[in-house]
Amino acid sequence: MRIREAVLTPVAFADPPLLNVMGVHQPYALRGILQLVCDDGIVGLGESYGDLAFLDRVREAVPELLGHDVFDLQGIRATLERALAGRVVTDQHGLTGGFSARKTAATVFSLFETACLDAQGRALGVPVCELLGGRARDRVDFSAYLFYKYAAHAPDTGAPADPWGEVLTPEALVEEARRMIGEYGFRSIKLKGGVLAPERESEAVLALAEAFPGHPLRIDPNAAWTVATSLRVAEQLDGVLEYLEDPTPGIAGMAEVAARAPMPLATNMCVVGHADLEPALRARAIGVLLSDHHYWGGIRATQALSTVCESFGVGLSMHSNSHLGISLAAMVHTAAATPHLSYACDTHWPWKTTDVIAPGQLTFTDGALTVPDRPGLGVDLDPDALARAHETYERSGLTHRDDATYMRRFVPDFSPNTARW
Amino acid sequence: MRIREAVLTPVAFADPPLLNVMGVHQPYALRGILQLVCDDGIVGLGESYGDLAFLDRVREAVPELLGHDVFDLQGIRATLERALAGRVVTDQHGLTGGFSARKTAATVFSLFETACLDAQGRALGVPVCELLGGRARDRVDFSAYLFYKYAAHAPDTGAPADPWGEVLTPEALVEEARRMIGEYGFRSIKLKGGVLAPERESEAVLALAEAFPGHPLRIDPNAAWTVATSLRVAEQLDGVLEYLEDPTPGIAGMAEVAARAPMPLATNMCVVGHADLEPALRARAIGVLLSDHHYWGGIRATQALSTVCESFGVGLSMHSNSHLGISLAAMVHTAAATPHLSYACDTHWPWKTTDVIAPGQLTFTDGALTVPDRPGLGVDLDPDALARAHETYERSGLTHRDDATYMRRFVPDFSPNTARW
Ligand SMILES: [Mg+2]
Ligand SMILES: [Mg+2]
Repeated sequence: MRIREAVLTPVAFADPPLLNVMGVHQPYALRGILQLVCDDGIVGLGESYGDLAFLDRVREAVPELLGHDVFDLQGIRATLERALAGRVVTDQHGLTGGFSARKTAATVFSLFETACLDAQGRALGVPVCELLGGRARDRVDFSAYLFYKYAAHAPDTGAPADPWGEVLTPEALVEEARRMIGEYGFRSIKLKGGVLAPERESEAVLALAEAFPGHPLRIDPNAAWTVATSLRVAEQLDGVLEYLEDPTPGIAGMAEVAARAPMPLATNMCVVGHADLEPALRARAIGVLLSDHHYWGGIRATQALSTVCESFGVGLSMHSNSHLGISLAAMVHTAAATPHLSYACDTHWPWKTTDVIAPGQLTFTDGALTVPDRPGLGVDLDPDALARAHETYERSGLTHRDDATYMRRFVPDFSPNTARW
Repeated sequence: MRIREAVLTPVAFADPPLLNVMGVHQPYALRGILQLVCDDGIVGLGESYGDLAFLDRVREAVPELLGHDVFDLQGIRATLERALAGRVVTDQHGLTGGFSARKTAATVFSLFETACLDAQGRALGVPVCELLGGRARDRVDFSAYLFYKYAAHAPDTGAPADPWGEVLTPEALVEEARRMIGEYGFRSIKLKGGVLAPERESEAVLALAEAFPGHPLRIDPNAAWTVATSLRVAEQLDGVLEYLEDPTPGIAGMAEVAARAPMPLATNMCVVGHADLEPALRARAIGVLLSDHHYWGGIRATQALSTVCESFGVGLSMHSNSHLGISLAAMVHTAAATPHLSYACDTHWPWKTTDVIAPGQLTFTDGALTVPDRPGLGVDLDPDALARAHETYERSGLTHRDDATYMRRFVPDFSPNTARW
């Protein structure tokens, strides 16, 4: 079953002004949607980043892949590695660790692998998780992903209003959580930190603990803290957090915190590729790895990664960027087929109001998604929705994510900085 | 596609009197052949150990698996782990490291996984390697597996003669290699050591190096040497060996040798399960891991294992016990779909004279096998050959491998012993 055509559609969707250490989310989040058209008419779907530098790498790769068999994933990987040799996509938003030619190839491959697996599953009549060794679970748990946020985007952006209001206090955060949990039923709750002073974020976590007893809690300041601050917060939140995510930058700093913090440290910043595994595991820097098939070299590579974690007694969770339904379906199949996934996965899902897949195809109940039973990823593209999302992309004028520059519209002297506190 | 019936057939095949640290191969090697009959009539094939303790565990597991979907490998694994809880099959021949309930479950699962993947591939019309992510190579290299051997089995066993003659000198070994390489075209050459004094085995390796310039060489004394002896031999064979396999017992001893030996150390004895990975990698005990889907928890688990190795800069090769064509086909598909397989795989293939698969289905050329292109594993059972091999099993009277007891027919005071030199 050979690739006849690869249609890459950049899309944008409205995103609320969510705060993080790098700044604030722009009015629109970008994604790239891939339709891999095979010679027998089957179309496999993929979704990944929408930054121009990434899209350009994918576009460069497409001619090399035409005519390739969608079952020949190893050949596709090798071809991509050759085609992209030396090309590096820099992660301009700075939230998923370093970048390298290898990570770039892994990221581009992941997009194609997802679409190939979808095509394989559609052709064979089996769900993707069955192609991955079967489901270790029928339902995949996700966590509520809380953000501090502004009430509205900068006025002259014409960005749509969102219904969440300003969230900058513990009370508003508890309200945000109540609403999100009410609608989706999440159990675990994650707070995106690195926005306010560490003490205020600790207070917020304690307020969440009081408001939602029994709900596992996490905070992720995206390496905004020094080692000393990290240890102080870890002390304050002893017994409260299921894990502390990326308190401080780098493997050495994380190892220093990990040696004395009472809870496990999680990361999607200091371990973002296979080359990071050996140093991080030798240094005992992490207790939980946040996998992400988008940059860990694909779905099968993520499954394999779980073996590394299991062998070293490291837990596994799943990282998320702003995403749409194809990525979510891929995450669900990956999670279903990865037994050693010990924590609820992250998702930005509640923060978006549109999608490119047919409505109702992925519905959260009790904070979880049932693994789709249909062939492939089990989601269908909604062509009208895709066209609208592409129009939004064109109108947005955005070509890459840049939370920091946009943040200066609100805080003129803002400067993103890790270990700032 | 559900399992309707599981037919387990113990078989035996003539095996020459090959020597190793535990003694000498008995006149017949045992294997278990699994036919997994699905509700639509498709039959998936598996092959693994034939020791009675192992066969009994498989037989115990069968009733639990009837009705299971062959795509639901995770469910099959979980069911087996429950069914076999606490049961341990001891590795009575002592050549593949320790044993545990987890390793037992992993070994039983592997047999069923192989048969399920064969059934999946047959049902979907794709080769197993395509179900594993596609082939990273079209041909899989194997190494010549040289043994010291006696001229014949003990006379009263009625065992068939073999055409290889006695091999106890460097000259005879070179002759054995010449014959095996002439027939199969192997490039890498492995010597099973631990039989003669280390100096004599070193000499033999040097004779092979001289007779076969450019052929990568390995020696595997199955942990028969002390650390000091290992280092002495390593020194003597500097520049000659591609790797030194299991010179000495245990992770600590291997680490001591590895720190000073000029070549990488390989193992299929001190790292035989996921629990061994962390200590061995922390101790930098090994440079090459010999995988084996039969006890590493199956084919997919072996692929995942390659990621651990790759992340830690450890090479990957493949271990072999005496086996027939179904195991060889499974090894070939596994190897094909595992990019990070950096050395030619071991195989005992040349030492057997019969099989249970249709003749000619796996043919070595230039020391390699072409990855089968047919659905599933790509080999067919020969029912008459299976019946004959089962008859041989019944007639052999053997129920488990025991090289040491049989060795006492030749050397009455023989006692297997690691680090004996
Ligand atoms: Mg994070
Ligand atoms: Mg060995």
